[in-house]
Amino acid sequence: MLNYTTQSRWPNGFGSQQSPIDLKNVGAVHAGTALDFEMRNAYGLTSEIDDQTTIRDLGDGAATIFGRQFAFVQVHFHAPAEHLLAGQAKPFEIHLVHQNSIGQLVVVALLVDVGETDATLQQIIDQFEPGQTQPVHIQLGKWVAEQPIGFHYLGSLTTPPLTEGVEWLVITNPTVTISSRQLAWFKAHFQPNNRQVQPLNNRRVEIYTKQE
Amino acid sequence: MLNYTTQSRWPNGFGSQQSPIDLKNVGAVHAGTALDFEMRNAYGLTSEIDDQTTIRDLGDGAATIFGRQFAFVQVHFHAPAEHLLAGQAKPFEIHLVHQNSIGQLVVVALLVDVGETDATLQQIIDQFEPGQTQPVHIQLGKWVAEQPIGFHYLGSLTTPPLTEGVEWLVITNPTVTISSRQLAWFKAHFQPNNRQVQPLNNRRVEIYTKQE
Repeated sequence: MLNYTTQSRWPNGFGSQQSPIDLKNVGAVHAGTALDFEMRNAYGLTSEIDDQTTIRDLGDGAATIFGRQFAFVQVHFHAPAEHLLAGQAKPFEIHLVHQNSIGQLVVVALLVDVGETDATLQQIIDQFEPGQTQPVHIQLGKWVAEQPIGFHYLGSLTTPPLTEGVEWLVITNPTVTISSRQLAWFKAHFQPNNRQVQPLNNRRVEIYTKQE
Repeated sequence: MLNYTTQSRWPNGFGSQQSPIDLKNVGAVHAGTALDFEMRNAYGLTSEIDDQTTIRDLGDGAATIFGRQFAFVQVHFHAPAEHLLAGQAKPFEIHLVHQNSIGQLVVVALLVDVGETDATLQQIIDQFEPGQTQPVHIQLGKWVAEQPIGFHYLGSLTTPPLTEGVEWLVITNPTVTISSRQLAWFKAHFQPNNRQVQPLNNRRVEIYTKQE
């Protein structure tokens, strides 16, 4: 029986809902044809930071995500990708971090293939100054399709403090690609910065895609 | 610098967003005139459990909470209240626990004064069987005003596993009251079951109330 007089020693379940995870179609619950994510204006980047393990750009923007209003806060990059698709890692993953008025976090993750050079990524690369934080004026390209498909689940930040209660939309059909030259630049400047996949435990993962 | 080769030893910030908290008008951000909580149908209770420290009734129902759909899962009771209002505890607090399709939790807490006998609480009391879990057929009364006012913040479960990422709506003008006789019944059957208030840390608390 729960003892309220010894509550400082209550067990806790922190750490059971961590990210990233290995995303699989099998076991995921089909919940719709497209993820409910809409950028309500163009996202602007205003400050670029050398985070030592990645580039992080702070910015502003507004989105509607599953019926709620969120502010875009920052974007950063992982190579290789952190989320796996049936055990396989894409070469690159972009994290668009959003927050609402009480601090709830939604990360929109884009799993990026090698392909055409992306102009926004090139601006971010060109303006990077090692060890510096500096003002930038970059407008994010249209990185997301009208009908984004992918996964939706409850997880955590993938870097310390590893905060849980973070909502993830992992988009598998972004319109952004990264050129092999851009990817080589990231690999030359940063060590691999993907956290290992974490146990799913008893979480429910939703998949949003067109019915076959 | 964050070292990806020793990530099993990364520090975490779990435990910094716990509930309950001491709610104060001063410092809270005025965010609207009413909390966006609407029961979309009558909540029904189908199973009543002696949780040893409280009564917990499982049930079903649907709500819209700040623009998103949630299912009502269970209701349970604390005496005295867990959330404080400027350091003061109400005699009783009702927790209506809701969940959405990916497991996000919203607890709608009602801070209850002593007053008239509540018919639903009386049914719950009358059907209680110590040590038992049993089927019940109880329809929840209209416990919440059309324009619920109160607080909105991000916290945790108040019992183990103390999971964080829980959204709280703490309603300070519920239409339900508890009679002194009903309150005495709860106190006779259960020890005080209020968790101590937890540090706010750097969380933002919103207040929804009519402008003075």
